[in-house]
Amino acid sequence: MADWLPTLKTATPEEGYDLAVKLARVAVKLTQPDAEVRDRLRPEYAEDSDALIAVSQVVATHFATVASANDYWQDRT
Amino acid sequence: MADWLPTLKTATPEEGYDLAVKLARVAVKLTQPDAEVRDRLRPEYAEDSDALIAVSQVVATHFATVASANDYWQDRT
Amino acid sequence: MADWLPTLKTATPEEGYDLAVKLARVAVKLTQPDAEVRDRLRPEYAEDSDALIAVSQVVATHFATVASANDYWQDRT
Amino acid sequence: MADWLPTLKTATPEEGYDLAVKLARVAVKLTQPDAEVRDRLRPEYAEDSDALIAVSQVVATHFATVASANDYWQDRT
Amino acid sequence: MADWLPTLKTATPEEGYDLAVKLARVAVKLTQPDAEVRDRLRPEYAEDSDALIAVSQVVATHFATVASANDYWQDRT
Amino acid sequence: MADWLPTLKTATPEEGYDLAVKLARVAVKLTQPDAEVRDRLRPEYAEDSDALIAVSQVVATHFATVASANDYWQDRT
Repeated sequence: MADWLPTLKTATPEEGYDLAVKLARVAVKLTQPDAEVRDRLRPEYAEDSDALIAVSQVVATHFATVASANDYWQDRT
Repeated sequence: MADWLPTLKTATPEEGYDLAVKLARVAVKLTQPDAEVRDRLRPEYAEDSDALIAVSQVVATHFATVASANDYWQDRT
Repeated sequence: MADWLPTLKTATPEEGYDLAVKLARVAVKLTQPDAEVRDRLRPEYAEDSDALIAVSQVVATHFATVASANDYWQDRT
Repeated sequence: MADWLPTLKTATPEEGYDLAVKLARVAVKLTQPDAEVRDRLRPEYAEDSDALIAVSQVVATHFATVASANDYWQDRT
Repeated sequence: MADWLPTLKTATPEEGYDLAVKLARVAVKLTQPDAEVRDRLRPEYAEDSDALIAVSQVVATHFATVASANDYWQDRT
Repeated sequence: MADWLPTLKTATPEEGYDLAVKLARVAVKLTQPDAEVRDRLRPEYAEDSDALIAVSQVVATHFATVASANDYWQDRT
């Protein structure tokens, strides 16, 4: 996983949100490096509302960081 | 889902809160893109107090970001 | 639910805390709009310590936002 | 519960921590106002490590707010 | 537990981390003051990965506070 | 575990993320110092999606701290 995070800067809030989703997923990859296991787990938690909400919580935490890094994209408004 | 988040700026705290709710939901959509599955899960977690509180936690985290992005709507007070 | 959040400013820390409680509850209402269902769930989670602690966590997150919005009520001290 | 939170300022970090504990408890009281029920729940969660850790999480969130409100008690160092 | 938290300042990030661990533990002590009960619970949660991760979350929240109080130990770099 | 955290500064966001992962793991080590027990728990939670998401949440909290300590690596953009 080389060079997957060159910067926290994004052009738009939407891209910032996508980056937050990515940041949430990478920790899972680093903890469970076996792609096969992750593929097996995915359909399971993707149909479990508790897990979906928990994922959303992680994204929210990362989005706060990304938004702050981009000064909330103030220049665009 | 094109252009769903043009800005974090909102006119009022209430609209900021609505945006936080939206931000919480989008992560669920991105993790479970199948609308049919989501529709099936919704009535389930909407009657589960643990899930409702967990959703509220995600909204709280996003609201902190949106409120900060709007400088807490200081200009209005 | 029109105009339920005109401002994040409150006169006192206590009122700020009450606002945080309100902010925590509104997300539940928006996710489960049926008051009858919510009334049914309430006695259940109000006797479940895990749920009570989770509610307290949501309030804590919102209180951080409200306190920051009020500059920690510095003018009063 | 009148006037339980006149200020977020405390003289020392320790008092700030105690205030964070108090802030965590008040949300529980507001959600479950019946003291008898709370007294019944207490021994239960006080012997449940998951609950104890969850309480500690709420305290941590409030302590962040109180510490920030006191500018981390910089004047004392 | 007198005078256990004279300051949030630490000489190094590592000591700051240790302080965060301490801050996480004190809330447990205050909620469950009986050392015997805590000693009984410890081996239990220390072998429960969910509990270990939850403890790590509390430490993370406190570390954010301690790091900020120390201005991220900028003077050392 | 001497000198494992000399600084929060990292050259790149990616190294900052790696540091966040490390920060998340150390709290587990301090709570469960027995490496054998940890090795036994690892395969278990590494196949449990709830645990993986919880780990990701801890990493997200630490990444916020590390990113802030590095001023979001602004100099690089």
